Amino acid sequence: MTLLVVGSIAFDSVETPFGKADEALGGSALYFSYAASYFTPVRLVGVVGEDFPMKSLDEFRARGVDTSGVEVSKGKTFRWKGKYEGEMNVAQTLDTQLNVFGDFKPKIPAAFQNTPFVFLANGAPVTQMSVLEQVKSPRFIVADTMNLWMRIAKPALLTLLRRVDGLILNDEEARELSGERNLIRAGRAILGLGPKIVILKKGEHGAFLFSEFFQFALPAYPTDDVKDPTGAGDSFAGGFMGWLAATGKVTLASLKRAMAYGTICASVNVEDFSFAAMRRTSREQLERRMDEFIQFIQF
Amino acid sequence: MTLLVVGSIAFDSVETPFGKADEALGGSALYFSYAASYFTPVRLVGVVGEDFPMKSLDEFRARGVDTSGVEVSKGKTFRWKGKYEGEMNVAQTLDTQLNVFGDFKPKIPAAFQNTPFVFLANGAPVTQMSVLEQVKSPRFIVADTMNLWMRIAKPALLTLLRRVDGLILNDEEARELSGERNLIRAGRAILGLGPKIVILKKGEHGAFLFSEFFQFALPAYPTDDVKDPTGAGDSFAGGFMGWLAATGKVTLASLKRAMAYGTICASVNVEDFSFAAMRRTSREQLERRMDEFIQFIQF
Repeated sequence: MTLLVVGSIAFDSVETPFGKADEALGGSALYFSYAASYFTPVRLVGVVGEDFPMKSLDEFRARGVDTSGVEVSKGKTFRWKGKYEGEMNVAQTLDTQLNVFGDFKPKIPAAFQNTPFVFLANGAPVTQMSVLEQVKSPRFIVADTMNLWMRIAKPALLTLLRRVDGLILNDEEARELSGERNLIRAGRAILGLGPKIVILKKGEHGAFLFSEFFQFALPAYPTDDVKDPTGAGDSFAGGFMGWLAATGKVTLASLKRAMAYGTICASVNVEDFSFAAMRRTSREQLERRMDEFIQFIQF
Repeated sequence: MTLLVVGSIAFDSVETPFGKADEALGGSALYFSYAASYFTPVRLVGVVGEDFPMKSLDEFRARGVDTSGVEVSKGKTFRWKGKYEGEMNVAQTLDTQLNVFGDFKPKIPAAFQNTPFVFLANGAPVTQMSVLEQVKSPRFIVADTMNLWMRIAKPALLTLLRRVDGLILNDEEARELSGERNLIRAGRAILGLGPKIVILKKGEHGAFLFSEFFQFALPAYPTDDVKDPTGAGDSFAGGFMGWLAATGKVTLASLKRAMAYGTICASVNVEDFSFAAMRRTSREQLERRMDEFIQFIQF
């Protein structure tokens, strides 16, 4: 089944102990789309400035991403500049220029409005909500969020949480949203805010999935070659939602396998800057890594 | 098969956000013995002072722990005082009185010298080595260690590592010993120092097992009720070694299951101070938690 993603398209300038990238292609919606398109057709909605080379979306279209929802707006494309040090668990933001993304009012093309699987990448909760007002009876909606919205838009975020099926967030965000230090309590508390599933990402420590009826945990894929963590969370979400949409089913079994595909996509993505590592990884190679991962965690 | 453990017996005074314990029974060898004795007969070697109420070992004997290797020495029993705050990942040591444990020269009783499975709880590498000089062709030896020995007794530790089959240590210790920040690289680098397997404990984030031929990872059991982490690592080791000794086999399959039993024992232990949580948990209850855990991680 098809999968709609609404989120940012950006130029990222990133420095890590292993190198740097200057104004490289990035943004949550693009990382998500790249990963999800290993599995299923993706419909992308985002905004870029007049400075954006539309040709750079060719490789996405070649992977089955429908980019007709990418709007060109007067002004410059969103830019983010950051740095990772030491164990690279946390990005230090050096500069954020929202530019056209600051006024992003997503318009979901008519042809996209009946997409069954929907991912709302990180953004203002009101913006995420505006997407839900434009889609027609989606089967499964998952949202990402971040600390900022818990601080400046809590009521809107809480409203959104009552409308989505799933929420993806990282451990610190889960602690902040729930007020619980223990991650298991945090995950369960967030279920109480509305979503049927909560996915808690822990970077190199893997991820948890909470639902009313079961919990599930996965370690990260054991990569010893992390060059740039930018986009790890979004490629995780892309693999997760991409697999669910491909199967067309949201069941205990499909959710578990989707978590594993999310883990694998993230593990590939962090091995190089921007899209370089995913670009050189075929679906076949992804499956081989999945087989290895299953050996790594099953008994 | 039987299992020998050599390590500390202590009185612990512990404060956590959930309460406190004053001069409660503790020590690495006791935590290890309690957990291991769910699975197999244990032979315990340790030292206590004249102030130690030997009656407190009755419950260990009732579980199949042979305490005839516990020596009473002139002086006081080892005392440790510590505090856990916030997420309780790291103990702050407030006071350490080694007392009789400071001069511990383990004497392995003749009846214990042919024990096939051996665990060297944390202690000075020369002391751990002295145990290996007294045992006769053990099948499988695992050692625990800590940062202190990497700093003050590195050559002795490196000698020990060439003599043991396995090493258990936590993530920070693994980083310090290997000089690698990435945990996967750290685990592999430590394999290069001698042990055939390396187990890397990550507290609430689970554990990794590294060997030359395979790797394995488990998340922690999702407990939302952590009261006191003291002894978590030793009860993990107890469950791990206890299961291996019970099966009498060290294979890919038994190692994986042993990791899971270690995880389960640690998860029980942290739910209360001293031995209170293990004391109220039967083997049957342990197996129920194991079943739950398997649901939590398998797909």
